[in-house]
Amino acid sequence: MQITLGELASKLGLSLIGDADQVVCGLNTLKDAEAGEVSFLANSSYQSQLAGSKASAVIVAADLAEQVASNVLVSANPYLSFAQASQLFNNRPEAPAGIHPSAVVADTAEIAAGVSVAANAVIGEYCKVGSGSEIGAGVVICDHSIIGNDCQINPNVTLYHNVVLGDRVTVHSGTVIGADGFGFAPDQGRWQKICQLGGVRIGSGVEIGSNVSIDRGALGDTIIEDDVIIDNLVQIAHNVRIGKGSALAGCAGVAGSTSIGKHCTIAGGVGIAGHLEIADGVHIAAMTLISKSISDKGAYASGTAQMPMNEWRRSATRFRQLDSMAKRLQQLEKSQKR
Amino acid sequence: MQITLGELASKLGLSLIGDADQVVCGLNTLKDAEAGEVSFLANSSYQSQLAGSKASAVIVAADLAEQVASNVLVSANPYLSFAQASQLFNNRPEAPAGIHPSAVVADTAEIAAGVSVAANAVIGEYCKVGSGSEIGAGVVICDHSIIGNDCQINPNVTLYHNVVLGDRVTVHSGTVIGADGFGFAPDQGRWQKICQLGGVRIGSGVEIGSNVSIDRGALGDTIIEDDVIIDNLVQIAHNVRIGKGSALAGCAGVAGSTSIGKHCTIAGGVGIAGHLEIADGVHIAAMTLISKSISDKGAYASGTAQMPMNEWRRSATRFRQLDSMAKRLQQLEKSQKR
Amino acid sequence: MQITLGELASKLGLSLIGDADQVVCGLNTLKDAEAGEVSFLANSSYQSQLAGSKASAVIVAADLAEQVASNVLVSANPYLSFAQASQLFNNRPEAPAGIHPSAVVADTAEIAAGVSVAANAVIGEYCKVGSGSEIGAGVVICDHSIIGNDCQINPNVTLYHNVVLGDRVTVHSGTVIGADGFGFAPDQGRWQKICQLGGVRIGSGVEIGSNVSIDRGALGDTIIEDDVIIDNLVQIAHNVRIGKGSALAGCAGVAGSTSIGKHCTIAGGVGIAGHLEIADGVHIAAMTLISKSISDKGAYASGTAQMPMNEWRRSATRFRQLDSMAKRLQQLEKSQKR
Repeated sequence: MQITLGELASKLGLSLIGDADQVVCGLNTLKDAEAGEVSFLANSSYQSQLAGSKASAVIVAADLAEQVASNVLVSANPYLSFAQASQLFNNRPEAPAGIHPSAVVADTAEIAAGVSVAANAVIGEYCKVGSGSEIGAGVVICDHSIIGNDCQINPNVTLYHNVVLGDRVTVHSGTVIGADGFGFAPDQGRWQKICQLGGVRIGSGVEIGSNVSIDRGALGDTIIEDDVIIDNLVQIAHNVRIGKGSALAGCAGVAGSTSIGKHCTIAGGVGIAGHLEIADGVHIAAMTLISKSISDKGAYASGTAQMPMNEWRRSATRFRQLDSMAKRLQQLEKSQKR
Repeated sequence: MQITLGELASKLGLSLIGDADQVVCGLNTLKDAEAGEVSFLANSSYQSQLAGSKASAVIVAADLAEQVASNVLVSANPYLSFAQASQLFNNRPEAPAGIHPSAVVADTAEIAAGVSVAANAVIGEYCKVGSGSEIGAGVVICDHSIIGNDCQINPNVTLYHNVVLGDRVTVHSGTVIGADGFGFAPDQGRWQKICQLGGVRIGSGVEIGSNVSIDRGALGDTIIEDDVIIDNLVQIAHNVRIGKGSALAGCAGVAGSTSIGKHCTIAGGVGIAGHLEIADGVHIAAMTLISKSISDKGAYASGTAQMPMNEWRRSATRFRQLDSMAKRLQQLEKSQKR
Repeated sequence: MQITLGELASKLGLSLIGDADQVVCGLNTLKDAEAGEVSFLANSSYQSQLAGSKASAVIVAADLAEQVASNVLVSANPYLSFAQASQLFNNRPEAPAGIHPSAVVADTAEIAAGVSVAANAVIGEYCKVGSGSEIGAGVVICDHSIIGNDCQINPNVTLYHNVVLGDRVTVHSGTVIGADGFGFAPDQGRWQKICQLGGVRIGSGVEIGSNVSIDRGALGDTIIEDDVIIDNLVQIAHNVRIGKGSALAGCAGVAGSTSIGKHCTIAGGVGIAGHLEIADGVHIAAMTLISKSISDKGAYASGTAQMPMNEWRRSATRFRQLDSMAKRLQQLEKSQKR
């Protein structure tokens, strides 16, 4: 991929200060960029790297244009412009159209023209795959599941039956959508299985990382709304609903029947208990446990901060005594007043 | 699936108050049920939904029968009756019997009559699969592993060699049973691998969620006893033993050689350190860290509860000062006594 | 596998006190060993089991040799000798050399002589697999990825494109290497994808557990240095670097662009935030959250310790009041001074 700065500025809708004929061939960080590469500054903590960068052009906000030694691409939102540039320089190998002879596709499945179905993929009865979608090697899609247009289902993904994906959905490898929710009734020391009769509905523009588990509903569906992004190793239990535009980082887990609002950000390792309602615009800090519903937008946290081990031990020991400490404090206050 | 309420009551062993000839075709929540569907009330917090439900019948305890507008199925344990009803209305597509031509089954493997082996499954030398079991698409079962009767091994599961499953075991997709335990001896800044010579033994009636990792033993086996249920993304290290009837929720992790008793419940995100003994009947709250053995049944927790971020910051800062606070409190008490 | 104690002592470089002609056929714990098996004592808490063990030989330190009832293999480092012995007694079924007819290998891929490619594996264009390596059943390796010599890629692993593994790398089942990092620019309530243009480079002598996710870099590579060991269900985000000889236990997660030093140990369930620098020789306790860089070697922790639930509730309630408690304590101290 080679492009002149003039063309690049035009495609990204940016104004160029410098040589429109300079050819560039890739993106890189300010620190690692070589001549012929484009870089960007979106985080002021890297501002000191502007002067020394070898990049042939830098995407920056207007007020920093003067500090760039080479060509400048002026952007009102450099991070967004960088994202758009990354899509131009995308180097992902293209999947060949057509169904690989080793794939096993049921006669009743409807595969749109131009779909790529890779080696050893398995597509069940009455499934549908929309145009422009890619089904990776070793993917298994069980009966009655539907994939929209322009989806990218990476190798070794598993979709159970009655899973519905909208358009432009990306699912990374190892992810499982539609396995049974964890529903059992206790029965004299054993567990009676509650068959999970619902499905999973995923909106459009959703991206799901690798090794994610999204369970089917017990009654009714588990629902991921449009434009949700989910990182790796995330657990989404049965009948959860994730609102439009929300983001869940790696290793987060959401228990059954909890509803998360729109435009929430759930940081890595967060755990959210079941049957809760989380309002729109809630931000939860890393490794927080949420065990009560949240009705007000804003940021929330739990836990304690890192400490050297020997200091931590002392604080942890005192944590066990906290109630006694609080009562003794009250006692002192009382006797002082007398 | 269509059934009269008379038949349904008979199959579930419940007494019917109402129209035995009413035909029903599914289950749903009180809130979402339409005419022709059956609902249930197992949690008193939904009691207010009884009056307005459109369900054609509701499974309830005897003392609430009068509050149901439609037909009533009286149960001593409505949640258990609902679980049994869900099994009657199970809508999971049935797997066709026989070995799919694309499956690769070793000549020395013994596959019972009527077993379903789906497309692109791979079954190794000297494996056995018992009658009534289903092996999903893309499943890999390595040499010398044994699957009992009526097991359901979902697509893209991996069983290493020498893994033994009892009867009626369900394993969901992406799960890996029998990978090497994490055993290494430090050797001058490098790690010398301890080959994991044991296997995995799983009892009967066990259900294992998706993307679970259960490692083989280093010496001797990792053991999951009968009737254990394990949710998604759970880590079970080498030589762990999980006692009969215990339940582990999503994202829990158990380190090597720890033994968990019978009828324990381990909530989501819990971590249990290695070489511990957890008694029978222990219940551990979500995201708790267990670093010492537990000899008494009961409930245990660690961590702190959710707070708005700015309040949390103040508490977290004070946590670092706790030991100093405790000492200053003692000092005040001492000087008061003087 | 049968071997005389004389041969075993010679292969492990240990001195034998006892019968050099005694034949042994396996390893076991002191407690479970039968006649014909070898055991070891590496942890003094098991010393009381020495006397009663039925093992035909025990690997011990010189000062404990007298306490062994049977034959003795004297070692300066019994745990390391045990690891070496486990490699001699390795019982993992050997993979047959050659490419299974059901595997799909691109014409442009270079597979060294003697490599084993199992059933239904898929190897993409321009990939290379070095001599002595095993590619398990159902493995998918995408275009332009390179596997060194003597690697073991277990069933149902997925490697995306441009993933490079050194020599002697073991990857366990369900693990995904090279999926897209979690990079998105917010854009009016939606997320604009940042295409992940980098790759993944993994050194030699690395072992990676099951269901691990290691993302490709956004710009530049995600890097795992030589001799790193990674347990199951670990999340390694884009552009992370893990230093030589470090170990990450199960369910740990490392966010984007964080660099971990050499010879660190990261315990189970630890979360490390993004863009941090962790020094060499840092040890982090189980389930700790690291949200700031660590410049000094040593041990670190966060969180609180396990408590019975009713006691925990009281401490957790007081944690919310900690800032107020601290201020009231200061008040009392002030009034005392007056």
